[in-house]
This record gives sequence, C-alpha cells and structure tokens, in this order.
Amino acid sequence: MKPTVVRNICRPDPAAIKLLGELGTATVHEAQGRTGLMRPYMRPIYPAAKMAGPAITVLSTPGDNLMIHAAVELCRAGDVLVVTTTSESTDGMFGELLGTSLRARGVAGLIIEAGCRDVADLTAMEFPVWSRAVSAQGTVKATPGWVNVNVSCAGALVRPGDVIVADVDGVVVVPRENAAEVARLSDERRIKEEKNRVRLRAGELGLDMYGLRARLKDLGVEYVDEG
Amino acid sequence: MKPTVVRNICRPDPAAIKLLGELGTATVHEAQGRTGLMRPYMRPIYPAAKMAGPAITVLSTPGDNLMIHAAVELCRAGDVLVVTTTSESTDGMFGELLGTSLRARGVAGLIIEAGCRDVADLTAMEFPVWSRAVSAQGTVKATPGWVNVNVSCAGALVRPGDVIVADVDGVVVVPRENAAEVARLSDERRIKEEKNRVRLRAGELGLDMYGLRARLKDLGVEYVDEG
Amino acid sequence: MKPTVVRNICRPDPAAIKLLGELGTATVHEAQGRTGLMRPYMRPIYPAAKMAGPAITVLSTPGDNLMIHAAVELCRAGDVLVVTTTSESTDGMFGELLGTSLRARGVAGLIIEAGCRDVADLTAMEFPVWSRAVSAQGTVKATPGWVNVNVSCAGALVRPGDVIVADVDGVVVVPRENAAEVARLSDERRIKEEKNRVRLRAGELGLDMYGLRARLKDLGVEYVDEG
Amino acid sequence: MKPTVVRNICRPDPAAIKLLGELGTATVHEAQGRTGLMRPYMRPIYPAAKMAGPAITVLSTPGDNLMIHAAVELCRAGDVLVVTTTSESTDGMFGELLGTSLRARGVAGLIIEAGCRDVADLTAMEFPVWSRAVSAQGTVKATPGWVNVNVSCAGALVRPGDVIVADVDGVVVVPRENAAEVARLSDERRIKEEKNRVRLRAGELGLDMYGLRARLKDLGVEYVDEG
Amino acid sequence: MKPTVVRNICRPDPAAIKLLGELGTATVHEAQGRTGLMRPYMRPIYPAAKMAGPAITVLSTPGDNLMIHAAVELCRAGDVLVVTTTSESTDGMFGELLGTSLRARGVAGLIIEAGCRDVADLTAMEFPVWSRAVSAQGTVKATPGWVNVNVSCAGALVRPGDVIVADVDGVVVVPRENAAEVARLSDERRIKEEKNRVRLRAGELGLDMYGLRARLKDLGVEYVDEG
Amino acid sequence: MKPTVVRNICRPDPAAIKLLGELGTATVHEAQGRTGLMRPYMRPIYPAAKMAGPAITVLSTPGDNLMIHAAVELCRAGDVLVVTTTSESTDGMFGELLGTSLRARGVAGLIIEAGCRDVADLTAMEFPVWSRAVSAQGTVKATPGWVNVNVSCAGALVRPGDVIVADVDGVVVVPRENAAEVARLSDERRIKEEKNRVRLRAGELGLDMYGLRARLKDLGVEYVDEG
Repeated sequence: MKPTVVRNICRPDPAAIKLLGELGTATVHEAQGRTGLMRPYMRPIYPAAKMAGPAITVLSTPGDNLMIHAAVELCRAGDVLVVTTTSESTDGMFGELLGTSLRARGVAGLIIEAGCRDVADLTAMEFPVWSRAVSAQGTVKATPGWVNVNVSCAGALVRPGDVIVADVDGVVVVPRENAAEVARLSDERRIKEEKNRVRLRAGELGLDMYGLRARLKDLGVEYVDEG
Repeated sequence: MKPTVVRNICRPDPAAIKLLGELGTATVHEAQGRTGLMRPYMRPIYPAAKMAGPAITVLSTPGDNLMIHAAVELCRAGDVLVVTTTSESTDGMFGELLGTSLRARGVAGLIIEAGCRDVADLTAMEFPVWSRAVSAQGTVKATPGWVNVNVSCAGALVRPGDVIVADVDGVVVVPRENAAEVARLSDERRIKEEKNRVRLRAGELGLDMYGLRARLKDLGVEYVDEG
Repeated sequence: MKPTVVRNICRPDPAAIKLLGELGTATVHEAQGRTGLMRPYMRPIYPAAKMAGPAITVLSTPGDNLMIHAAVELCRAGDVLVVTTTSESTDGMFGELLGTSLRARGVAGLIIEAGCRDVADLTAMEFPVWSRAVSAQGTVKATPGWVNVNVSCAGALVRPGDVIVADVDGVVVVPRENAAEVARLSDERRIKEEKNRVRLRAGELGLDMYGLRARLKDLGVEYVDEG
Repeated sequence: MKPTVVRNICRPDPAAIKLLGELGTATVHEAQGRTGLMRPYMRPIYPAAKMAGPAITVLSTPGDNLMIHAAVELCRAGDVLVVTTTSESTDGMFGELLGTSLRARGVAGLIIEAGCRDVADLTAMEFPVWSRAVSAQGTVKATPGWVNVNVSCAGALVRPGDVIVADVDGVVVVPRENAAEVARLSDERRIKEEKNRVRLRAGELGLDMYGLRARLKDLGVEYVDEG
Repeated sequence: MKPTVVRNICRPDPAAIKLLGELGTATVHEAQGRTGLMRPYMRPIYPAAKMAGPAITVLSTPGDNLMIHAAVELCRAGDVLVVTTTSESTDGMFGELLGTSLRARGVAGLIIEAGCRDVADLTAMEFPVWSRAVSAQGTVKATPGWVNVNVSCAGALVRPGDVIVADVDGVVVVPRENAAEVARLSDERRIKEEKNRVRLRAGELGLDMYGLRARLKDLGVEYVDEG
Repeated sequence: MKPTVVRNICRPDPAAIKLLGELGTATVHEAQGRTGLMRPYMRPIYPAAKMAGPAITVLSTPGDNLMIHAAVELCRAGDVLVVTTTSESTDGMFGELLGTSLRARGVAGLIIEAGCRDVADLTAMEFPVWSRAVSAQGTVKATPGWVNVNVSCAGALVRPGDVIVADVDGVVVVPRENAAEVARLSDERRIKEEKNRVRLRAGELGLDMYGLRARLKDLGVEYVDEG
C-alpha cells in the first residue's frame, strides 16, 4: 500500500519488440489469442502514431503529475510510459514539456488513461500519445503514487516491462515473457493473411476460402430468394 | 426468428442514388423531412469518406463476423454493406481483408454499428467505413444471423435496398421507394441554398432573408440595449 | 425569464485578446488559475482550428436555431458566437449557410454545445467550430430564446464579452475584466516555459528542475530496486 | 415521408400476450433466439414495473409531444405506447397528465426513448414506464410526426402491433406474427429451467448438467493446480 | 481569479421557497419558461428525496473537499449546498460526516456535480443528495477554491442565493430575484393542471382539451386507415 | 496465453474478511490509501447489497458464460466470483440459474463487468450482484477463457484470493497479503470517525476540528463580505 518507486525492470528482447511494432495492434492482438487489448476509448492524438516498447508504469492520483516526473528518469530509450489514475479523470496530466523531457531520453511514446494537452506541439514533435481525452486542464504536483507496479489501464493489465504495441487501431499489451513467442505467431499470421489477401483481391469469397458454407448449413441458416 | 439469408433485393434507380450521393447527408436529410438519420456516434474512419448506395443488411451477434462473410457474395457493385448487432459492441468485426473482398466486388463502403480495425490500411485503400468505434478486438465466425432483413442501425430503420447516403456529417437512410423523389427534392434544396448563400455572403441577414423579425416579435422576444 | 436579446456588450481590449489567442488554451488556462475550461467533449471540427474573441452568447431550445439568426447582426468582426441549449442535444443547429453569414461579418468562429453540420464546407472555408457532436440533424426556427445573457456552456460560465480562447486542446473562458491581466500572466508563463523547455531538452529532469525529489521524500515515497 | 397517423393496427392473440408478460423479458428473449432486445439504457421508473401488450408506435421530434397526444385515442385497453424521436434527446416528453389519460383508456404502459417526468406520481399510480432518462425538461406541441409506422427504438425494430414485453431486466419486442409461437417456446423454456433449477439448487454443477466438461477439453482449456 | 470565500449572500423570501419546494421540479421548471434545469445525470441518492432552499455555492478542484468544509459555516438552516468542480470527476467528495455537520446546521440538502459516498448512512439520516455518481473514492483537503461565486453546475448557472428545487425528476434553479414570481406562476400552473387532470381522468382527450386537432390538420398530418 | 483454469488459490484470514465486510467500501478504501476502487459504473442490483470475500476470477469472451460455469466448482463458501471480459459488453452473462448454483455452494456474491439478468429473482433470493448493466441479453457457452488468473475489472487489478468488499458505495479490492493490516487500519479509522461524528453532530466545524483555517490562509484564500 505504501507509495513506491521501483527502479529496475526487466525488458524483453528488442528484436521481438521491433517486430511486434511493425506488425501492429490488430495482428498482435489476434496472435496472442485476442487478449490484452485496451478499451477503444484510448485514441492516438494523430492518426499516423505507431510505436512499441516495454512499459514503465505509473499509478497516480487524478490531476496530479508528480509521479510522471518521478518516472522520467527510469525511462530508457525505446521505453513506453503508461500512466493510469486511481479514479477516472480527463485532466491534461501530460503536455509538451513532459514530452520534450521524454523525447530527450529517447522514450517511444505515452499511454495515458486520462487527458493530454499541447496536442499541436506533440504532433509537430511526432511524439505519439494515446489518451482517453484531450484537455487543457492543468494539474498539481502534490500527491504520492507508484512507479513500476502492476496497473489496470483502460481495461488491460500492465506489468512493468510488458510490451505495449500501439497504432491507430488501439493499444495492446503483450506479457513480457511472451514477447518473442507472440512476435513469432504474429509474423506467421501476417504471412497467412498476405496469402488470403491475394485470393480475396482476386475475387475469391471468404465463405469458400474459410470453408464457412458448411458451417452456415450446420447452424441452420436458411437461404431464401426474396424478403 | 429462424436465421435467414435473403438472396435478392430491389435496388432503386442508379441515377437517383448517384445524385443523392453528390448532394450529401445534410441536404438529403432535410429534403426528406428530417428523418432517417443515424445517431451521430457513427463516424467515418477518414474525413473525406463519402458514398451512396443501396443497403445489403446484416444482423449479427456481437464479436462474430460469420454473417458478414455470408453477405459478401450478395453484394453487387455500388452496394453499401450495413452491419448491426443483437446487442451493443465495439469489437472490430471488420478489417482490411473483408475490405479487400468487398472492394473486389465494387462495393461502395460499409456502415457498421460496432467496431472497425485495420483503419490505416482501409484509409490507404480509400475504402470508406462509418463505425461507432475503432477497435482491434478480433472476432469469431461461429454464430448464425441474418442477411437482408429489416434492421435497426444506430437509431435508424434500414431495409434491404434502402439508399444509404454517408459523408463527414453522418449517415442518412432514404427509403428505397422514395429515392427518386428525395433526390429531386434534395436538388431543389441545393439550388435554393445556393441562392441564399450568395445573399448571405453579400451580408444580408438570415433574419431578413427568412422573414424572422416578425416571428421574434410574435414570440414576444424583447430587445434591450444593455444587459 | 422573458426571452430577451441584449444589443450592446462590452468587449475587452483587442490587444489582450490577440495575445491570448496566440498563447493558446493550455497556457491561458494555467495562467488564470486553472479555471474556466469547457469540458473536453467540445472538439474542433478540424485540428488546426485556433481563435480568440469576445463572446456573443445564445441560449436556445435544442433543435431550433432561430436565436442564432437573431444573434448574427449583433456580431462584430472578431467576435466569437457561443451557443448553448436548455437541454442536451446533438442536433446540427449550425451549418455552412450560417457560417457564410458569420464570415461575411468577420466573426472569428463558433462554440456550440450541440451539433454542427456541413463540416466539409466549413473546413474548406476555414471557419473554426468547436462542438459536442457532428450531426446532419436539421432544425426549426420556431422557439424564442435569449441573446447576450450569462450562460452555462459545457461546464463553463460565459458572460457576453468574456474572451473565448480555443484551439485543439479545447476551449477556455477568460472573464472580460481579467483579459489584460490574464494575457500578461500567460505571456510570463510562456517565457518561463520556454526556459524550462531548453533545460528539459538538454536532458535535465523535471524532478530536479522543479525540486520534486524533496517532495517525494517528504510524502514518504519509497524507492526500491526491484518489484 | 409525409407525416401520417395510421388508425388501425392488428393485435396478436391476447392469450399469447398475457403468457409472454408472465414469463418476462429474459425468458422470452431467449425463446425467440436472442433477438429483439432494446438497449439496456432503457430502465423502468420503478423496479416492480412489469407489463406486456401490443405496440402503438410514435415517431416524434425531440422535445415535442404533439404526436403522443395524437396517439392516445388510438390506444385500446392493454396496448403499450412506444415513443421514439428523430434525434437523441432526454427531454421529459411524458408526465403524469398523459399517464392519467392513458390509464383512463386502460393502456398497459409506456416505452419512451427519451425522458419521463412526474416519476413520483406515475409510480404512485403504478403506471409503468421504461425510459432512457428521468428529466423534468418540458416540451412543446408544435411539430408533425408519425403514429403507427415502423420505428427503431433503443436498438430494436418495432412495428405497430408487435408485442412489447418489459420488466426490470429490460424490454423485448416480439414480432406480432410470432407471438403465439414465441409464447409457446417461452413456456417450454420456463419448464426446462424449472427442472434445471431444482438440480442446481441440489448442488449439481452446470458443467455436468449441460455437459460442458467435454467442451472445455475440446477447446483446449488447461487445468493447473496453482497459479 | 483569486480563491475567495464570500461570507454574505441574499436569500429570497422563505414563503416563496417553501411553495416552490412543495410544487416540485417539473412544475417550477415549466412555470419559469423551461429554463434552469440541471442535466438529468444528476440523480437523488434515494427516490423520496425532495427539497428546496437558497444556494450556497462551492467551486472546487476535483477530489478535494477543502472548500466544502470552508462553506459549512456559511450555511444557515434551510440552505442548499451546491458543489461543482473545475474539471469532471466522480470522486466521492461528500460523505456521512459532512452530512452530519450540515444536518447539525439545519441544511436542507446537497447538490454535487461529482460523487457522493456513505449513501446508506445518508439515506438512513434522510439527508437528501443529488449527485452525478456514487463513489467511495476519497479525497484530500489541499487545494484552494471558491465559495459563493457564480458557478456552472450540471449545465445550469447557479448564483449564491438562487433557489434550488430538487426531487426525483431532477434539479431546477430559480434566479433569486424571480423566486416569488415563479412560485406564483407555479401555483397557477398546479391549479390549471388539477383541472386538466380531472378531465383527462374522465376520458377526455388531450387532443380535444388542448385544441390540437386543428393543429395536426394545419401541419398537414394525414390520417389513413391502415399501414 | 493458453486458456487455463487454476484450481487452488490462497484465501486470507476469514476474521479479517469479516471485519472488512462490516466496515464497508468507503472506510476500507480510505484505510488502504485510496487505492483499489472499481469504477463507479459498477452498481448493486439492490441498494441493501453488502458483502466481502476472497475473489475467484474469470476472464471471458463477452456474451459467453462457459467459463463462469467452469469457475463454479472452484468456489467455496464465502467466496466472491469476479467476472470480466476481453472487450466491453453489457450482455446479461449471469442470471438466476447461475445464482442458484452459486448460492448452493455458499458463494457470497458476484462482481461482473458486464450485464446481469433475472434481477427480480436474484433480489428475492438476496443474492448480491454488482454489474455495469442490467440486460436480458442471453449468451452462448462456446469460447475458452481463464479462471483464477490476474484480471483488470472496472479499473481495478484483481488477483485470485484478493478480498472484494462491496456495498452501495461500490466495490474495493484489498490485496490478499494486506487483508489483516487493512482490516486493522479500517477499524482504527472507524473509531476515529465515530469520535469526529460526535463532535460534528454537536455543531463543531470540520474547519476547526481538522485545523483547516490555517491551511486556507496559507493557500491564500481570501474572505470577503459580499459578492
């Protein structure tokens, strides 16, 4: 219960993280069994935002960014900062100054289950942020909290070092011990989908390609000629 | 009650559909007496999305896209696929592979009262989608449903063959039997608005142009010089 | 209680308004003590929207834009029209024709706690609008209301002549009597932030720059080496 | 498109309606294949509210109850009034005076996809209402609309004469032509559930009773002894 | 902008307040021209809650109840405390201890555009609260704010001393200078409605009683015999 | 990633659980440093619902209650079943038959981040349920999931065996290893609050009792005599 900052975390293999980021949220989410997706109210501040990296987690009081400041020095190049709050808030707990500070350390981007501000500047910097709101509402630096503990963020469980994969389709969390395996499965899925894409583009039907006609029949779906 | 796929639908006159699409949602909606608009939570995945076409309807279980696959082969060039679910969901029931398949058949676009994924790819393909959410959440292909029955989608009643008109202002449904008449009325409205636009641009007031000063007086609105 | 239109309002010093607009929502909001921000559901119809100006206020029945028409002739160049309704609505009470009329008078933009339509046209005109929804839903011109009275808009109190500052981060209201003082404080804040930005960009930590290490210690935050 | 009042509707067999009402929303919804349920934001104004009856439908402009008044004289004893609006609203379009008028005609209750007011009085009268909001916001009687046309209400398609079944679990719509068959299937389900209830109460597991252990195994669910 | 507590406010005539409270939200809201209603997300913690009194206003930081404590000593018997926050929050800023303190001073009840907790105890005490959420989330006492300034609460403008009328239908604000006049108009409305109730109960139709048949005809509503 | 059921969990000391349940959500939440509260959209199906017990956790696909059935046999007397889903849903995944089955095993109650149905029957049985919706929407038993893994439920992290404390104020999670300590701290808080209650009831002000006058002065809050 005591407010705590954990200094060291384990980070998965960078090659796996890189591959996960290239494959993107939808593919990775499917490959790990349709788990770990954050709720869709988490949206990027600009559509081309895309990143992957190990999570540095923050649990903070709403409207207070003291613990975000505490987390900055624990971030290494490539990390993703994940911020959540003890109760719901849309306050703009993160802005361009913090973005500048994180960028100086090579941080890949931010996930925040609260608000973000200075969106025009952050977009110009190409510093990617996924948030539940855009809000200019400023914050104090007064209340203790936690860094690098397990958190619940937008419906997903995030542990320090878990891989965050984020793009315009949303944010998915890959447990750190599964990173390499999920990267491999995601790539297999990509290859399979590429083959399917060629067939669908040529006009083949999913009904035939996936063998769904029999399933429709088994399920008792009836075809009639007019409504 | 039995899950059913209706093969044949009646499509309105293509010339009327084309005109409705050019005139756009706001004009068409006004012209048909301010009815048939879907709720404003239905948003395009990219701002320039714009289309019109007869509806192929799907009623599906949330998180299951089996019936979307069943609907694909019933779509002709120019059709619009309209997907709704038996209970609320934001799951990403439609993605780029289905978009590729529909594009191969010349389908104009998709309306889905659920989630959409692979938004970057669909945008690059310029395949327009209006959805209530963007979500990577994947789906199964397991549960029977309906194709080409009357559905309730985002607050609007849609029958197979009704014309869907969609742009950045939202989605409106034109009953199939009214397509030609609504197209005509919409075009009349466009012409009238063009005239009004010229007068307003020149500085004339709506108060005068629409004769509203008398109405304000009749309604007892009082003018005072300071607050 | 009687429906009323107030003809004359006091407008703050244009130089202060101009400076407030340049500094933007987040800086101004901080400088005036983190008050006056509208709720974050008020979003611009295009990301580059940015403006400032004195408020002409409208209190209207939902789905009725009669009083918006009444307000147009009271607007001067540089003013911002602020529209709210007696109950919640997403109806598209404002569109491109009204935008053309306001543009002809040099109005800076619109804040509407309801819906906006003709978004493509308004964007092409670069007429900035912040609204709670985009909706084609049309409206009547039938019900009396108020112009230039104090209103509650999206959680903020707005009096005629108060300065509205709006950009992609949201909308903030500066009380008219404080405009010059808030502009001055905002500019001081900008200067201070610019200095901080240089230091953060060079890798200095907010923890050190703001003296937060002592605060963390005082608050009993414990550092540990592993989780 | 023209505003219309349809005087005569077909009502299903009263015995079927009575049975559907006794069995309740959850059972009826299951029995007709999990379709026809309104969205769960439709809530009763008091928990013991329970009713069933054929629908008299109203499509109205938000904040205007003129067409509700037009519908009253078309209601017979046992009917259910179903009111929806052309765009979203929470306005209190229905109150105790209209409740008194409907009660005088023997109407079973009201479904309204908008607001309800005078909730204390309606509760004291035991006049059941399901609405999306409670709101004192008053309305005008000024805008034309429709009575007894097909409507989309809270995500469900309702045709005049369809049976509305409503209780604390929500509101389900039974197509008028299926009323007798759905009543029969619902009663079968009730009998089957009563048998299952006895077994479950005695401690038998659903896993065994429904034969789900094999399914878990087939699906590859692994049992382990500790986490 | 400076945090301020205003000690003295003007309270309207107690007889007018008493009458407003007896007549209730819906009647009062109608009588003052359908203005001043708070958004319907403000709900009583128990259905029988009902009160009226002059407002003591608080503008606070979310999650901080310091200024509520500052307001207590300014409350007199019969007053209503109205609390709003500078940004949206559901935190439980008010509980049974504060309720006990207010009850000791004879305060009529609380309106809070945030959360309330200890709902079972407050209900047992019959201390009425209208809030946007029930939440156990506790708060600090650390941030300055305002007492007895004009505030925007749940969509309504509230000035110190304005009369708050609240019951199960919601919360309405009567400007302090209008209290007596609105009470008189509300009572006239009550008398008129009582007469209408007798006629409706006897089976007379609103269509006839309000003369709406002619209006329907003028508006072009067409009656047809079957759908 | 593989679907898994964990058979054995560690349960904290029953005496600590009993005390936590008596003290209730608000007190326990404060005592453990204002952490672990679920979002306030989790509401009890009847106001008197109150319980505490160690969590048996379920992670399920929306609209599928197969894994709830799998969890039943792992529940012991006094346990609390906690169900969450891989994406958002309001489907009624739990009803009276499952309630009967859990009651037969002595289960204390249910927390479900989805819908609940048969609310009248569950209330009559006094089986307490906290859910995000009431919905009759039925479910299938087809998709694999997890039992007794760490889950994110309504914004809180829940591990098997963590203590769930729930009443009308909401739901709080106490980490299993802290149960005894939090129970002790909660009871201390109860005793302190009882003393404060006596003083407040006697008319002493929180301003004086908590020493807040000095804080207001330090924070620069200014007292003025009129607005």
